Amino acid sequence: MKRDRQFRPLPVPSVDVQGLFGDRQDAICDSTAATLLDRCVEAGMVKAIDTSIPSPGVIIPIQPWGGTTQMFWDSDLGKSIETVAYSLYRRANPELEARVDAIIDLYEKLQNEDGYLNAWFQRVQPERRWTNLRDHHELYCAGHLMEGAVAYYQATGKKKLLDIMCRYADYLITVFGRGPGQMPGYCGHEEVELALVKLARVTGEKKYLDLSKFFVDERGTEPHFFTDEALRDGRDVADFHQKTYEYGQSHVPVREQTKVVGHAVRAMYLYAGMADIATEYKDDSLTAALETLWDDLTTKQMYVTGGIGPAAANEGFTDYYDLPNETAYAETCASVGLVFWANRMLGRGPNRRYADIMEQALYNGAMAGLSLDGKTFFYENPLESGGKHHRWVWHHCPCCPPNIARLLASIGSYMYAVADNEIAVHLYGESQARFEIGGAKIELSQKTNYPWEGAIHFGVKADKPARFAITLRVPGWAEGATLKVNGEAIDIASVTIDGYARIERDWKSGDAIDLEIPLAPRAIFANPLVRQDAGRTALMRGPLVYCVEATDNGEGLNRLTLTGDLGKAKTSTVDALRGAVALDLPAQRDAADWGTALYRTSPPKQEETTARFVPYPFWDNRTPGEMLVWVRTGAASGE
Amino acid sequence: MKRDRQFRPLPVPSVDVQGLFGDRQDAICDSTAATLLDRCVEAGMVKAIDTSIPSPGVIIPIQPWGGTTQMFWDSDLGKSIETVAYSLYRRANPELEARVDAIIDLYEKLQNEDGYLNAWFQRVQPERRWTNLRDHHELYCAGHLMEGAVAYYQATGKKKLLDIMCRYADYLITVFGRGPGQMPGYCGHEEVELALVKLARVTGEKKYLDLSKFFVDERGTEPHFFTDEALRDGRDVADFHQKTYEYGQSHVPVREQTKVVGHAVRAMYLYAGMADIATEYKDDSLTAALETLWDDLTTKQMYVTGGIGPAAANEGFTDYYDLPNETAYAETCASVGLVFWANRMLGRGPNRRYADIMEQALYNGAMAGLSLDGKTFFYENPLESGGKHHRWVWHHCPCCPPNIARLLASIGSYMYAVADNEIAVHLYGESQARFEIGGAKIELSQKTNYPWEGAIHFGVKADKPARFAITLRVPGWAEGATLKVNGEAIDIASVTIDGYARIERDWKSGDAIDLEIPLAPRAIFANPLVRQDAGRTALMRGPLVYCVEATDNGEGLNRLTLTGDLGKAKTSTVDALRGAVALDLPAQRDAADWGTALYRTSPPKQEETTARFVPYPFWDNRTPGEMLVWVRTGAASGE
Repeated sequence: MKRDRQFRPLPVPSVDVQGLFGDRQDAICDSTAATLLDRCVEAGMVKAIDTSIPSPGVIIPIQPWGGTTQMFWDSDLGKSIETVAYSLYRRANPELEARVDAIIDLYEKLQNEDGYLNAWFQRVQPERRWTNLRDHHELYCAGHLMEGAVAYYQATGKKKLLDIMCRYADYLITVFGRGPGQMPGYCGHEEVELALVKLARVTGEKKYLDLSKFFVDERGTEPHFFTDEALRDGRDVADFHQKTYEYGQSHVPVREQTKVVGHAVRAMYLYAGMADIATEYKDDSLTAALETLWDDLTTKQMYVTGGIGPAAANEGFTDYYDLPNETAYAETCASVGLVFWANRMLGRGPNRRYADIMEQALYNGAMAGLSLDGKTFFYENPLESGGKHHRWVWHHCPCCPPNIARLLASIGSYMYAVADNEIAVHLYGESQARFEIGGAKIELSQKTNYPWEGAIHFGVKADKPARFAITLRVPGWAEGATLKVNGEAIDIASVTIDGYARIERDWKSGDAIDLEIPLAPRAIFANPLVRQDAGRTALMRGPLVYCVEATDNGEGLNRLTLTGDLGKAKTSTVDALRGAVALDLPAQRDAADWGTALYRTSPPKQEETTARFVPYPFWDNRTPGEMLVWVRTGAASGE
Repeated sequence: MKRDRQFRPLPVPSVDVQGLFGDRQDAICDSTAATLLDRCVEAGMVKAIDTSIPSPGVIIPIQPWGGTTQMFWDSDLGKSIETVAYSLYRRANPELEARVDAIIDLYEKLQNEDGYLNAWFQRVQPERRWTNLRDHHELYCAGHLMEGAVAYYQATGKKKLLDIMCRYADYLITVFGRGPGQMPGYCGHEEVELALVKLARVTGEKKYLDLSKFFVDERGTEPHFFTDEALRDGRDVADFHQKTYEYGQSHVPVREQTKVVGHAVRAMYLYAGMADIATEYKDDSLTAALETLWDDLTTKQMYVTGGIGPAAANEGFTDYYDLPNETAYAETCASVGLVFWANRMLGRGPNRRYADIMEQALYNGAMAGLSLDGKTFFYENPLESGGKHHRWVWHHCPCCPPNIARLLASIGSYMYAVADNEIAVHLYGESQARFEIGGAKIELSQKTNYPWEGAIHFGVKADKPARFAITLRVPGWAEGATLKVNGEAIDIASVTIDGYARIERDWKSGDAIDLEIPLAPRAIFANPLVRQDAGRTALMRGPLVYCVEATDNGEGLNRLTLTGDLGKAKTSTVDALRGAVALDLPAQRDAADWGTALYRTSPPKQEETTARFVPYPFWDNRTPGEMLVWVRTGAASGE
């Protein structure tokens, strides 16, 4: 297949979803969307942009790194607006829409004549505009408002916020560049790069792509912008947060980067933006760098949940194979960012190398961030808990709640992508996708109970017959998947390219595809270089990582040892987990008849038991207690 | 045996030690003692007490808890003086002695006319004297200077510092009490209690014991002193460091305490002081409380190394059975404090329940704190390291370096204790102890290569024959220990009381005892309630916990599984570890031929190997790298 294809995600309104994804979206419509706005109001974010009242000033004190999370309030509002917008596709909600309209009106009044727009730097520290791109998230905030604007326009047809953000982007084009009086700068926290691509796609304005590409190309070049900026600003160039340009991936030009380093969310947002630019400009040098970085992340630095960034200290990466389970930072936003990146790596053609990881991170590291009722949120996502880790109602740095919400609320856009004469299905789940291809209007539907069952029935509706390819991911873990077109078996291997079965033909209404993906439970072992997982196994079924919880198995989950054959696993449906499939497996347990001693010279006796595993993203939704993903296994002494 | 015996440790000058303890003391004489003084000078501690120059003021900024570690500088000087004093017993060093004399002269000039003495509250915040006993370590500093004074007097015969501290103690007697105008207070950080007992024992002044008992008795009573004090001082009574009186064990009166809580060092110092008071006053109510607390600590909250206090957040205790290995705080000072407490629990009679733990904490959690060359120091003592945990040259809160140094430099005093007509030998090691008993002057010597070998030969020299008991600990782990007196075998069980073999007879010069303690390696398993040690085993030999280090076994220590019979362990002597005994054991290793994948569905292959174990306290003295105490074991699936 040629590399110069350009796949772009379907717009969110073009896909309706049901099933598990639909259930998550209902929770967002029922609770999360309004909760996000409520929390933003409570935090003071709306007052901060209301020019009819005096500026509330510094509400969250300036921290030792020289800034405050209050500086990113625009981003929280932007992501919340984006979430509400997606929720409005699914379910009209005039009250929510009116609340967002009111916020947009405030932004309209706040915007400077020159187009500039930023709550902090207009209302609290106006004299500090564009003085510290390295630390103060100024363009990051712009990016999130742009994403919100695009989503709200697509959802409601209302252009006000989109126009505001286009004016701001037009102003940015005058500020940033290599021309006289311009700044050759970029943001310490990437985000505006991918946002400008969204803005360009919805407006058709290439100038926004060009600005995005400028930010990507400038990053990490010498003389270093952040060094020059610090000198101009009278700051110590060496004494800053984390004290390394690796923190924001600006240590070398992006095409020379080979190792995934620094703040995990920043890294993912950068790579996502790079992948967009690679797709739009067919930039092989960017793609090559991204492929190297992809391998680096996924073969040395990623939890089995698709969680990334093990350390709280830098909210990011440490050493290769350093994946502590109980202290895992694995920020929800970072897994969300990995989904963003993976999705955009599919821009130059379907490849399960990216899509499998996208699904793994989406279902596990990301989806765990939202409670089943849509009301509480994980920031960190450990793979082991002693019983004290629970979702927050809110967080002092509330980046994760709207991030997981906007991802799940827009998931249809991650399921399907179209290129000329081809539609790729990256993710499975009950849904209907509408798109135009080869001049025909097509609706492609999936009937399935995936991820709980592996049978997926595709139906085609077309206003007229058309020739194009339907390209379906065959997950790398799916051994023995089968495919039928209109009831006729197809040798799946013969049509599979890069892990996608590609069926090119004339499609007409009534055509059907049946894909059967076996969902046998899999015992997963980690590379022996991951010291924290030695002698342990994780259970997966389909895209889902499983875990044991105290509510099913009692406290003391490390007393369990998996010994049995996975073929003996029994599946059952758990109503309290919205129909999730649980797995029951024979296991041994260290016996409790130990006495009072803390230490002794004989090991505990073993007793037979059954261990119940439930999907990791659904943990901590019932009685709180211990949780464990990597369970001890007796397999190591076998083999 | 009666409970009203009173065993008191031999003074440090009465015992000469060689062997392993002697080697540690030589390192202190060679390096540590001078290093401590050097670091105190570098930190500005000596300038802080020099009234001939202006006060240097606040050098270490006030922290959010309302104080600074600079407030405890007197304690660092006190412990350093104490260490130097003990080193002078072993080896005269006129230069070091002159430096301490100069410091004592400065303290003499600093002391207030009323007897008060405190660098911070005389030179930096004089208006704050006695305003915040809860947080500001004022009496804690006094206590450490008292301990230094006692040691220096015993070492040099010079009384100046002792007189200074007696004047201060006399002043304290006027300040604290239940009389009119007196404060019914006590220190947030216990220490002065045990120091006053030392002062009383060396001066024979019961009034110091009484003050110590007052502090013990007042602690945690209602109305609560710290609450009243905060109100008087205009502070929020609820908003303080750790926000619970459990932090400093003042939540309830000490005799009602049943659970070991809060800051680990504070707890140990309190219990040590309580034990001293229990011995001196034959106070059964205190002893009963201490027995309960002892069980609580040693059966639910203690690492196998004798490390205690798993959490950095409160430098102390968390939940029962919560003993994380890699993130273990297990402060050196806390294990030193446990040795202090255990030693004082022996005041009312020998009992291996206390002495075994004393030895375990001394050799492992405490001794690890000092490098073999005596130049660097551990503050935290994890039981697993990914390779980045190393000893410090110094620490921002330098409590641990002088604490482990003064313990090791005075170890003779922990080995032997005397009561009327009885000498107890709590610890073994080549040494000579001099004491008077029953009117005779006795020298009891140990010839042994303990802890590397288990044969211990005791020789008696007496200026005249005398009847008394020699009482020798038979460690709980020593299966099959044998005893001979003057070559004649004695049935050890028949003379053993509370784990001590008690040989009462007329002793004369030339008498000999031979104690043989088998040192077979032991595989230790943790109670299944300790989730962090499940499926793992720790190796001990004698009192020493063993560990594997990367320098012997390569990186990837969690790839090792112990499978073999401990009887196959081979011992050898490691010159680079000063003759320590290493253990070589057959083991399996997860094979490295895994490929590049991070995760896969088949476990790693196993290869046969030999694992080398070295004593835990000696780790990180060679090429830096990983370390692991609790090694995976195949034993769990057996049994």
